[in-house]
Amino acid sequence: MTQGDRCADVLAEHFAAGRNLCVGLDPDPARLPPTLLPSAPIEERVVAFHREIIDRTADIACAFKPNAAFYEALGPAGARALAATIRAVKDRAPDVPVILDAKRADIGSTNQGYVTAAFDVLGADAITVHPYLGREALRPFLEQDDKLIFVLARTSNPGGGEFQDLVVAGQPLYRHVARAVATDWNDRGNCGVVIGATFPDELAQVRQDIPPSVPALVPGVGAQGGDLAAAVDAHRRSGSEAFLISVSRSILYASSGPDFAEAAGAEAERVHAALRA
Amino acid sequence: MTQGDRCADVLAEHFAAGRNLCVGLDPDPARLPPTLLPSAPIEERVVAFHREIIDRTADIACAFKPNAAFYEALGPAGARALAATIRAVKDRAPDVPVILDAKRADIGSTNQGYVTAAFDVLGADAITVHPYLGREALRPFLEQDDKLIFVLARTSNPGGGEFQDLVVAGQPLYRHVARAVATDWNDRGNCGVVIGATFPDELAQVRQDIPPSVPALVPGVGAQGGDLAAAVDAHRRSGSEAFLISVSRSILYASSGPDFAEAAGAEAERVHAALRA
Repeated sequence: MTQGDRCADVLAEHFAAGRNLCVGLDPDPARLPPTLLPSAPIEERVVAFHREIIDRTADIACAFKPNAAFYEALGPAGARALAATIRAVKDRAPDVPVILDAKRADIGSTNQGYVTAAFDVLGADAITVHPYLGREALRPFLEQDDKLIFVLARTSNPGGGEFQDLVVAGQPLYRHVARAVATDWNDRGNCGVVIGATFPDELAQVRQDIPPSVPALVPGVGAQGGDLAAAVDAHRRSGSEAFLISVSRSILYASSGPDFAEAAGAEAERVHAALRA
Repeated sequence: MTQGDRCADVLAEHFAAGRNLCVGLDPDPARLPPTLLPSAPIEERVVAFHREIIDRTADIACAFKPNAAFYEALGPAGARALAATIRAVKDRAPDVPVILDAKRADIGSTNQGYVTAAFDVLGADAITVHPYLGREALRPFLEQDDKLIFVLARTSNPGGGEFQDLVVAGQPLYRHVARAVATDWNDRGNCGVVIGATFPDELAQVRQDIPPSVPALVPGVGAQGGDLAAAVDAHRRSGSEAFLISVSRSILYASSGPDFAEAAGAEAERVHAALRA
């Protein structure tokens, strides 16, 4: 993305071109290909691995999504690897936005620190955040016109319903959250929602509740067991092409052999084709 | 804290001794005393500043609480400053737990990364987390018997009620969250709740809803305008001494002159005395 581009516009172009695959860049040291720089420091191994993955998937991906937890677990080396991974996307695929999957949210003044970290220090184009503190607290994120702020609505984990499914005025909490984010919070057109593929009925309901142009980030396909076809169908039936199907492990670790990059590219192509079917 | 100590037990000893002040360590480069290492790199200035603050407040504090956002905003230097700040607490005050105020929470497998980052890499004794994904997702945190997991219930920001006040089965959501955390989630006795001092009625309600032994982390006094006496009263009236009144800016930046450490110590003493009154 070039300076001044709006992430929402760039993503809309990808959607219009039939690109809906978001590639998760979640490094697991135990699963890096043993043949790749075996004696190099961990940060070099991670970045070299990601460079190959990015290169093989950049032409069909609508976004890359590094999850901060995997990097933070590696300490200072992980912080450097995250910064270098984002730079690697910018080098190879400047038109593919980077979503920092950080699931942040604090009170207002404190969020400014996270905004600086994600967008100024790291150069991400979008971020995931928790809704619990409300719009007022998230204002430092929501004021970033050129970024996209993806707010958790219905998450993909098995126990996600503990609070998200609680009934408020006749409807589950997650529907209230999704609608608030997609309408009230979205006066600058820079909000999206996160809805897991593992609950296709809830996904379909949220998709009907919100305007078709609001992007939905959909994790849970692949290792978590969400059904790809059902997730896509939920969007298309409501007339929306604004969705990002996020796939991480099944692409990254398609092979642990020296053919890992080819295997990752082939798996990404397979998902991309399935999304277009 | 010595290896094997449980943070819950250590905090309980502080409460029994009348120590309820939690000192926030939130570095703001613009507000560091200009006389302190003026030409040193930012991380050295931050750590030198915190060493003085820690030294002047360690004997009356029940915990120190660095907020991750302030460090992340400083990039790699901030990551080093956070690690060094936590080490500085361990050096000077090994019996005063460090609460990493990171407000994390992701799906289960991913939270393991945050657990590793907070407790293994950084050496924190406790962490703050979001409740939205439910107990199942937070299991990697909740399985840490010797740590304390503070879950957001009613936050201190003005708009915190947008979702937290929504009524579920006749009661606001935050009461459901607080009760679940303090009972169901707390089978290992390692859970606490976060309830802001800026809403004293809600604070008093939550305190009555949960067992007196469950620690409540209470931000919002001082710069955010919460009333100290009302916050303390809410706990004492329900027979609980298990609370941490968190104060950051009014202690850290009590003076910007060369007397900053003395001024911080005096302000901490003032709050400590008010807590005991």
